[in-house]
Amino acid sequence: MTSLQERDHRDGAPQQAQDKPHIVIIGAGFGGIQVAQALKDAPAQITVIDRNNHHLFQPLLYQVATAGLSPADISAPIRHILRKQKNTKVIMAEVTGIDLQAQQVIMQDHVVSYAYLVIATGSRHSYFGHDEWEQYAPGLKSIIDATSLRRKILLAFEAAEIETDSERQRALLTFVLVGAGPTGVEMAGAIAELAHKALASDFRQIDPASARIILVEAAPRILPAFPEKMAGQAQKALHQLGVEVRTNAAVQNITEDGVNIAGNFLAAKTVIWTAGVAASPAGQWLHANVDRAGRVNVQDDLSLPNAANVFVIGDTASVIQDGRPLPGVAPVAMQEGRYVASVINASLHKADKPAAFHYHNKGNLATIGRSFGLADFGWLRLTGFVGWLLWLAVHIVFLIGFRNRLLVLFQWAWAYLTFQRGARLITFDTSKLPENAEIMQHLL
Amino acid sequence: MTSLQERDHRDGAPQQAQDKPHIVIIGAGFGGIQVAQALKDAPAQITVIDRNNHHLFQPLLYQVATAGLSPADISAPIRHILRKQKNTKVIMAEVTGIDLQAQQVIMQDHVVSYAYLVIATGSRHSYFGHDEWEQYAPGLKSIIDATSLRRKILLAFEAAEIETDSERQRALLTFVLVGAGPTGVEMAGAIAELAHKALASDFRQIDPASARIILVEAAPRILPAFPEKMAGQAQKALHQLGVEVRTNAAVQNITEDGVNIAGNFLAAKTVIWTAGVAASPAGQWLHANVDRAGRVNVQDDLSLPNAANVFVIGDTASVIQDGRPLPGVAPVAMQEGRYVASVINASLHKADKPAAFHYHNKGNLATIGRSFGLADFGWLRLTGFVGWLLWLAVHIVFLIGFRNRLLVLFQWAWAYLTFQRGARLITFDTSKLPENAEIMQHLL
Repeated sequence: MTSLQERDHRDGAPQQAQDKPHIVIIGAGFGGIQVAQALKDAPAQITVIDRNNHHLFQPLLYQVATAGLSPADISAPIRHILRKQKNTKVIMAEVTGIDLQAQQVIMQDHVVSYAYLVIATGSRHSYFGHDEWEQYAPGLKSIIDATSLRRKILLAFEAAEIETDSERQRALLTFVLVGAGPTGVEMAGAIAELAHKALASDFRQIDPASARIILVEAAPRILPAFPEKMAGQAQKALHQLGVEVRTNAAVQNITEDGVNIAGNFLAAKTVIWTAGVAASPAGQWLHANVDRAGRVNVQDDLSLPNAANVFVIGDTASVIQDGRPLPGVAPVAMQEGRYVASVINASLHKADKPAAFHYHNKGNLATIGRSFGLADFGWLRLTGFVGWLLWLAVHIVFLIGFRNRLLVLFQWAWAYLTFQRGARLITFDTSKLPENAEIMQHLL
Repeated sequence: MTSLQERDHRDGAPQQAQDKPHIVIIGAGFGGIQVAQALKDAPAQITVIDRNNHHLFQPLLYQVATAGLSPADISAPIRHILRKQKNTKVIMAEVTGIDLQAQQVIMQDHVVSYAYLVIATGSRHSYFGHDEWEQYAPGLKSIIDATSLRRKILLAFEAAEIETDSERQRALLTFVLVGAGPTGVEMAGAIAELAHKALASDFRQIDPASARIILVEAAPRILPAFPEKMAGQAQKALHQLGVEVRTNAAVQNITEDGVNIAGNFLAAKTVIWTAGVAASPAGQWLHANVDRAGRVNVQDDLSLPNAANVFVIGDTASVIQDGRPLPGVAPVAMQEGRYVASVINASLHKADKPAAFHYHNKGNLATIGRSFGLADFGWLRLTGFVGWLLWLAVHIVFLIGFRNRLLVLFQWAWAYLTFQRGARLITFDTSKLPENAEIMQHLL
């Protein structure tokens, strides 16, 4: 194992730079990138570590899974985002542990020491104790997940086209989404449009428009984060797209052949998990107290109880506000990231510490199909086409990289006018990647 | 095994349609798509079989490998291309054999009978008897090849950034291309621009601009299909981009650590095979006479000597004209495809058979980097920026799918103005796909 700091000395890097405190950020999602960017003028050396070379715009991942966008449209190289920030370097590597005593982050081939550490490693799906369901009902968190799902969905139609048994054909054309939060609702709408519009005239033996898309939710209603009235309107919009919504329907079992819901078996070859998430294994690295979902319990400045220079943010942290944990969404991670940067900056400048972290909810957004959106700002609630335009505007503005914004806008304009989805490409089978599948569990 | 025809009867398809002769086309590359499209009004049933669901615009595959384009930009779903052609259906399946006696194409789960058969299954790389080199020097024929190469190239820079041994760092920043035909020349130019421009300011420990790109060719000069003077100008353009060209340099061995060229060992972690190709295994299916490269010897109407209703076209066929086999390029495959369609059409209408096939060479095109092109039409020879504009125009016009054209044009305009490459996304490791790797050898 080699220390990267040692090497910097050997290479003759200015001694001065080495004397500056080292801030290590693990994970370059919404939270991690915010921390790095907010520290761009800090008198410190910053290292960002990520397993992947790219930052991912997760809210549009369902578009990749349903062949609307290409992976590169919603990704940007981390080093490119941070290229102008001369106090920051980026390492593509997998973290395997953290030594709080020695103040070191351990990777496969080397270690780095830190003065401040920020852990922003995100989350994975949780199957609520039924990990055996994962193989039959994959979730959607990474580019690999999205391209595998795209493959699975498109192959179901291909297999149905050459299937001679009508019952098996029926099962191939049945798509079940488990969990009716924003991801489940958005996926359901997108699959319905894919089947009922984009693929409508491409097959000869089957009618893709006859595909069933079923959204299953254990709770009494969909979209629990939205007001009841808006959720009702969303359910109507789903219905118009041909999505069957089943609420109060708990999933009891998932197999290769289908789903058991509230005592009934539903034959379905494609089941997608859009229900629970669990935090990354950062809690184990830290031997920290975690909540039921594996999220690390933090102080009110987002630091660890036993290490004031170590911070946990985003989906990896359990932050209680008004008696409830904050949801695992991008705005929470981004606000936490900026807050932690301000705490570190204050410490670097020996200034007063900022007041405890407080999340300001600026609103919730969701979309159903190509022209129905929900926007809830508390003081303003919009549904329908206006809601969709707002959803579009916010997502385009927040997408990193000017090129990506234009490309995504172009592809949506195209899809809007023609109902076509451009990325209907079946590539290879990621389920044949046992090693990677294992890596995926560890994040980031 | 089920016969698809049988099933059509069971399903109650009009008996009339079933009585029409069945034309089966294996492979939906440039040749196969032309056959299908030229038969759109034929009084026949047509089935197109391909292992993949997409047609691939191979001439731009090197752009995917060097992070300039996304896979979906140069692919279009086969069934979408042929969706309006009601006499044609598309099957995504892998052909495992052909029974000339029974006139049947055999796939994994079923068989189809044919009245006419067109084999257009393309080619793979040939290592001239050194198949063990493939693992160290992958080639570029499919989307999987391209995304693996992209991963390999981008990971080399990532690994160099954290490498502490300067010799190993040097080997990671050395890229060798074996074979200086159009693909080798285009790849070399694109990697040089990636390293020297797009990545220039993104790293902290290494200077990507110091990367060496070496183009190795056993013959006395590069681009043998072009006139000597144009090849000389191309070599100058490569030199200006920072590519080292080594002619008269035969590769003697390739290992994990580098290449042996003309007695000298060159340490290089990325070696790319852009030399020979070999035909698909169609020759074995047919027990036909093949040439050294595995291409099937055909009659002057492109049919098999022992089966007048079976045709072989494109890279899979060996067609001798003026004493030399025709090259494995898109225009040859496309002209052969249209010719075979005319032969079949004549047979269906009991009309006179067209004269023997003759290829009309309309010209050769190649490009080096973002503003130097070669265009050779015999009567007109253009190099430099004008040649590049022509190269661009021809490629955009022939790219299937209007949306793709606009997207690709946009991405190039962007890359041209900013030197950035948008698809710098490292996804997963296809070398961990033993099963697929095996499938890849079989084509299509």
